[in-house]
Amino acid sequence: MATTRVRPQVSIRGRSVGPIASSNAVGEEVPEFEPFMLLPRGPPPLTDYLDVWDVNMLKEPEEVNKQQHHTDRYANEGLIVRRGQEFQISITFNRPHDPSKDQFALEFVIGATPQYSKGTYIPVFPSEERNKLWGGRVLDTSDNVLTMGILPRADCIVGKYGMYVAVVTPYGIRRTKKDPSRELYILFNPWVKDDSVYLEDGAERTECVLNELGIIYHGAYDDVSERSWNYGQFEFGILDACLFIMDKGALPITNRGDPVKIARKASAMINSKDDEGVLVGNWSGDYMYGVAPTSWTGSVEILLSYANGGDPVCYAQCWVYAAVFNTFLRCLGIPARVVTNFFSAHDNDGNLKTDILLDENGKVDRSRTRDSIWNYHCWNECYMARLDLPEGFGGWQVVDATPQETSDGMYRCGPASVYAIKHGMVCYPFDAPFVFAEVNSDFLYRDGTLTPVKVNTSHVGRLVLTKAPGSNGRSDITSMYKFPEGSAEERTVLEKAEEYGVRRQDVTPPVADVALDIPSLEVKVGAGFDLALDFRNSSGQRRTVEAYTNGYVVYYTGVPSAEILFQMWRASTVIKVRPEDYMGKLVEQANLHFITTGKVKETGQIVTAMRVITLHKPRLLVQVRGLYTSFTMLVTVQFTNDFKFSLENVHVRVEGPGVMSPHNKLYRLIAPGTTISWTESFIPRRQGPSKLMASLDCHALRQVRTHTHTHTLSATNHVHEYKNDLLRVNR
Amino acid sequence: MATTRVRPQVSIRGRSVGPIASSNAVGEEVPEFEPFMLLPRGPPPLTDYLDVWDVNMLKEPEEVNKQQHHTDRYANEGLIVRRGQEFQISITFNRPHDPSKDQFALEFVIGATPQYSKGTYIPVFPSEERNKLWGGRVLDTSDNVLTMGILPRADCIVGKYGMYVAVVTPYGIRRTKKDPSRELYILFNPWVKDDSVYLEDGAERTECVLNELGIIYHGAYDDVSERSWNYGQFEFGILDACLFIMDKGALPITNRGDPVKIARKASAMINSKDDEGVLVGNWSGDYMYGVAPTSWTGSVEILLSYANGGDPVCYAQCWVYAAVFNTFLRCLGIPARVVTNFFSAHDNDGNLKTDILLDENGKVDRSRTRDSIWNYHCWNECYMARLDLPEGFGGWQVVDATPQETSDGMYRCGPASVYAIKHGMVCYPFDAPFVFAEVNSDFLYRDGTLTPVKVNTSHVGRLVLTKAPGSNGRSDITSMYKFPEGSAEERTVLEKAEEYGVRRQDVTPPVADVALDIPSLEVKVGAGFDLALDFRNSSGQRRTVEAYTNGYVVYYTGVPSAEILFQMWRASTVIKVRPEDYMGKLVEQANLHFITTGKVKETGQIVTAMRVITLHKPRLLVQVRGLYTSFTMLVTVQFTNDFKFSLENVHVRVEGPGVMSPHNKLYRLIAPGTTISWTESFIPRRQGPSKLMASLDCHALRQVRTHTHTHTLSATNHVHEYKNDLLRVNR
Repeated sequence: MATTRVRPQVSIRGRSVGPIASSNAVGEEVPEFEPFMLLPRGPPPLTDYLDVWDVNMLKEPEEVNKQQHHTDRYANEGLIVRRGQEFQISITFNRPHDPSKDQFALEFVIGATPQYSKGTYIPVFPSEERNKLWGGRVLDTSDNVLTMGILPRADCIVGKYGMYVAVVTPYGIRRTKKDPSRELYILFNPWVKDDSVYLEDGAERTECVLNELGIIYHGAYDDVSERSWNYGQFEFGILDACLFIMDKGALPITNRGDPVKIARKASAMINSKDDEGVLVGNWSGDYMYGVAPTSWTGSVEILLSYANGGDPVCYAQCWVYAAVFNTFLRCLGIPARVVTNFFSAHDNDGNLKTDILLDENGKVDRSRTRDSIWNYHCWNECYMARLDLPEGFGGWQVVDATPQETSDGMYRCGPASVYAIKHGMVCYPFDAPFVFAEVNSDFLYRDGTLTPVKVNTSHVGRLVLTKAPGSNGRSDITSMYKFPEGSAEERTVLEKAEEYGVRRQDVTPPVADVALDIPSLEVKVGAGFDLALDFRNSSGQRRTVEAYTNGYVVYYTGVPSAEILFQMWRASTVIKVRPEDYMGKLVEQANLHFITTGKVKETGQIVTAMRVITLHKPRLLVQVRGLYTSFTMLVTVQFTNDFKFSLENVHVRVEGPGVMSPHNKLYRLIAPGTTISWTESFIPRRQGPSKLMASLDCHALRQVRTHTHTHTLSATNHVHEYKNDLLRVNR
Repeated sequence: MATTRVRPQVSIRGRSVGPIASSNAVGEEVPEFEPFMLLPRGPPPLTDYLDVWDVNMLKEPEEVNKQQHHTDRYANEGLIVRRGQEFQISITFNRPHDPSKDQFALEFVIGATPQYSKGTYIPVFPSEERNKLWGGRVLDTSDNVLTMGILPRADCIVGKYGMYVAVVTPYGIRRTKKDPSRELYILFNPWVKDDSVYLEDGAERTECVLNELGIIYHGAYDDVSERSWNYGQFEFGILDACLFIMDKGALPITNRGDPVKIARKASAMINSKDDEGVLVGNWSGDYMYGVAPTSWTGSVEILLSYANGGDPVCYAQCWVYAAVFNTFLRCLGIPARVVTNFFSAHDNDGNLKTDILLDENGKVDRSRTRDSIWNYHCWNECYMARLDLPEGFGGWQVVDATPQETSDGMYRCGPASVYAIKHGMVCYPFDAPFVFAEVNSDFLYRDGTLTPVKVNTSHVGRLVLTKAPGSNGRSDITSMYKFPEGSAEERTVLEKAEEYGVRRQDVTPPVADVALDIPSLEVKVGAGFDLALDFRNSSGQRRTVEAYTNGYVVYYTGVPSAEILFQMWRASTVIKVRPEDYMGKLVEQANLHFITTGKVKETGQIVTAMRVITLHKPRLLVQVRGLYTSFTMLVTVQFTNDFKFSLENVHVRVEGPGVMSPHNKLYRLIAPGTTISWTESFIPRRQGPSKLMASLDCHALRQVRTHTHTHTLSATNHVHEYKNDLLRVNR
């Protein structure tokens, strides 16, 4: 069925007047001279009408526009401003402008076939009363130079505009020539009330728009690990890459003023499914034909590679999708953050159940248990008013680019209002029931006859974390998604969600009078450890438990890779796990999953407990030299193989936003006991604080990561040198 | 950019436990013998445990199941029942069943990896208390034969199930072998209250589920034309084709109990865009590599052709998409109808404006007018409760499979609640703002400086029609979409929609005191006619109008193909149009579009009027013989070319649901003045009333159509003969 055939190509003739502009690329040239009708033929006579000598976009980082519009950090030579806020352009004419007789306009155009009524052709006049779309006024005139203030509407299209100066003569309109140096980018503006992405909280706004240094949480809810990430939204080429993504997704130009439509389209485009988007997902452990998801240290390399040809980049898992999506949103000016949901359920039916089947002895029946709970799952939140919904559902919105099983039949998800999820109002678009299930599913144990014997309602969505604004600490935002477990509001919300078609488990099996817990442990890769089983008998009577413990190496998706342990006994306390039990079987992020199930002999009740252990990785060292002394600096990455086996095909990466573009190096072999040391030089582009992030990754040992803070005092501050450095590295 | 490259294939390993079942095709075989654990090795001893000799699905059209479930018309040899309603199966054992010691169950499975918790594996026991999903009871026992009643849940998955009888022995479970003759289809059930597609109105239900004979409206709102259409939802192979479409679209099996998800997926799959769906759109007039959209007489040929390999079928325009979608929905048991919206706006921005630009003389400026209004547009309504929305939004839902410019960035649309559209509650999914704009846009005239000079708020969505239930008459359902023009409710609704982000024109230019109207006309292809201009002066003073009339040949999408007329004069009355003005330029459905715009000299006000004329086609004759006398009948299609030119490559088609499978014939040339006559024989499959529909189509003369009513007294009533006939015709 999946054969590729040539599809008949059909023209748009007869169907629409012209093609729909869905690319930011410029289409037809605007004519340099547009004659008025009914004139004698021949070129117009040259007289003393106003002539444009020069246009100054005032686009240097230290000039007024980029300073006032918070766009000075972009490594981009063009003018970048934000909508809903005035910017300035200076025009030098052949003589002073005379308002009483000289008529001119600045014309802004975006996309092919610009049209006034679609907001893709905007003339701005120096007299305020003539402006219908954007504001315009004369700020200053001195001699031949006129400085104009232009105020783009707060809901205008976001992207790259062309700019022309048009002078009206009695014979027609004379325009300046097309000039790429006069192009400008208009972005979203979270600093301005009228923009639907306005974010009042200044600390959050700075964090979620301007911070390039990310921390992404993973591991287990009671043993949280951190990944540093370089979002790099201001790096050279990233803004153009973000526009390219929208072009590749053929998002109509006229939709590009709406953050809801942009976020939704991007949630589809950041993954390669359906639409040849940015990142190819791979959870298999075999990353031969690309970069292992655990190896990336930032978004820059990924986005530049995609923009250079449009081929999907290999490979990603959820945090890579979320991180690249975050770069996209912050780069365009939509406030965004990456969040991590610990124990994330994956539903494919608006169904709040995840099943574990036990056999008649109370042991997990692996052949019949097909559901899995992800140890953690990362997605994004972006901040915007939801003008398409009733009041109250604006604010943070969940968007998720990881291609999951189903989300309205397509690989995309959101924006879904976090407020709506918390209140069970899952009837509002987009994909709210799906996200609701991710944080609210029940964990259900069934016996051999499929009768539910135990329900765990608090396991899923245990903790939702994001980086705290302005610090390197964690912000627990679980309460933005859910009311407290067991509260009256929680019950109301579940009932509400049920009204909108979310199905819940409707049985409540009796609670056993024997409780079981496996306490948390911090374990290093390669170490042995003792797993404790804490039984608590609240019956006041004698209880005998026949229990089974299974241990698995699991992917972070909860999917088991190999069984490492199976023990069966009556009422015990400690299980010894030796390094040789798991070392040969580890996959990916080195997660171990233990599940104990048992039956109380006297009552027939079922007791269960689960524990995920994320093994801690060996250290990676990063050192920077030359911070205060020289223009060129050096970074050294060091690692010692303390294992008893060799590491093969080891990829080491290092990068830092504003200071060092992504570099990587491959070591074919690191023998046991040996140390590698890799030194690279770099020229910081920007002064001030930043971070260098490094990773080491190979098949046997994934995601060894570290970072170091930097503070550069001297920097090039010039894009072109940095650009050359970047191009050299990326070939 | 659009080069095809091999995408890296990535396994699901590590990401999920098993693949998601998204095909109705059966996966793993269910084992014939499933031993219990911990048994001594070796085959189980054969004893006198219950043995299944025969299973009777009671699936003949005249038997109880198909009669009670309204599925007797399906030309399908399998059992077809509807959910939420009991059906019967008889089992013959080796000896009488003894409830006290014999344990057995009927097992129903659907898709690969059937699972109890997903509703894809359903055991049904003869004792009611053991059944947790579906009901089951013994209806009758006589000797060795036991008749069981099975009641599928009213929200169960719709599709093709496998059925097994499993007998429990002390050694394990013994199952009947896989047997295709024991497969059964379970469909939606609009007759049953618990089903979310329940439709109370009996006449509407019969029309929208069981009627195969369709009428689809087109032309102009004040000169409506009709197309007969054979939906053919009961024809041989159609039900399997509908399941194939869901498989091709990879709709997860677990989603196939939800009519909202099925309708949404189908709206994407009926068109070939994005997903290699059923029909390729083509509005260009060049149909060399396929069948002209105007030539089809029914859905059967299209669906069978698609199901035979999965290649998109060429070509469709809106009514073909709507008709095939209608077949799909009715076939699965979702009540559905095709509706026609006259003057349908196409928006790509939740923007209620369609612009016509005038130059400084008041004449239409074609080079700058890029919007178009479709003369008419067809979509579907399907009937269902909307369990995903708050109460009140169930009932008729708009779905649209025609690939339009944008609908949430993908080529699909709906379901959108008609009630929500009428009340401006466009915040509920799916795509309500898009449909709202189709019936509510304003028509805006702007002058050279882009200032609005006239608004027509009543032009768009002028009339919404569907076939009346149980008759061949029309049902005007405009009031289900809109409150009356100018009413207080209408204003409230527009304001409401604006709250949810639908943008309206906010200026109200002054109304001119001179009105202009071009009265409607009925004109035959090839005839000359007089176009009247009715000016009405309500000012009480002298008014001079300088007016321009443009005439165009247009596609039904409102897109102009050729200018046929341009007149300019002061205050006139009648414009003469001669056949030679347009005959050489006609495209497609022979629509002429006249637009008159003018300026009142004294006041500067703008007056405008528009008229679409759909030219009427010559007659096609169809006659049937042998109705009452013989088993085999004859149909004759006759046509006379009254034009002065030859018709080339003329396709003639004829078919009738239940009586005659689609036949077609090609005439290379029909010279002026000559008559063609084509006779075909056929064997009716079903008794009772039906219709034969015929079309004649060639490049110079599109969509000449007719139909004749039939009432057959003798019929084969046997699928296989009919099947052979069908296969022969379709090769």
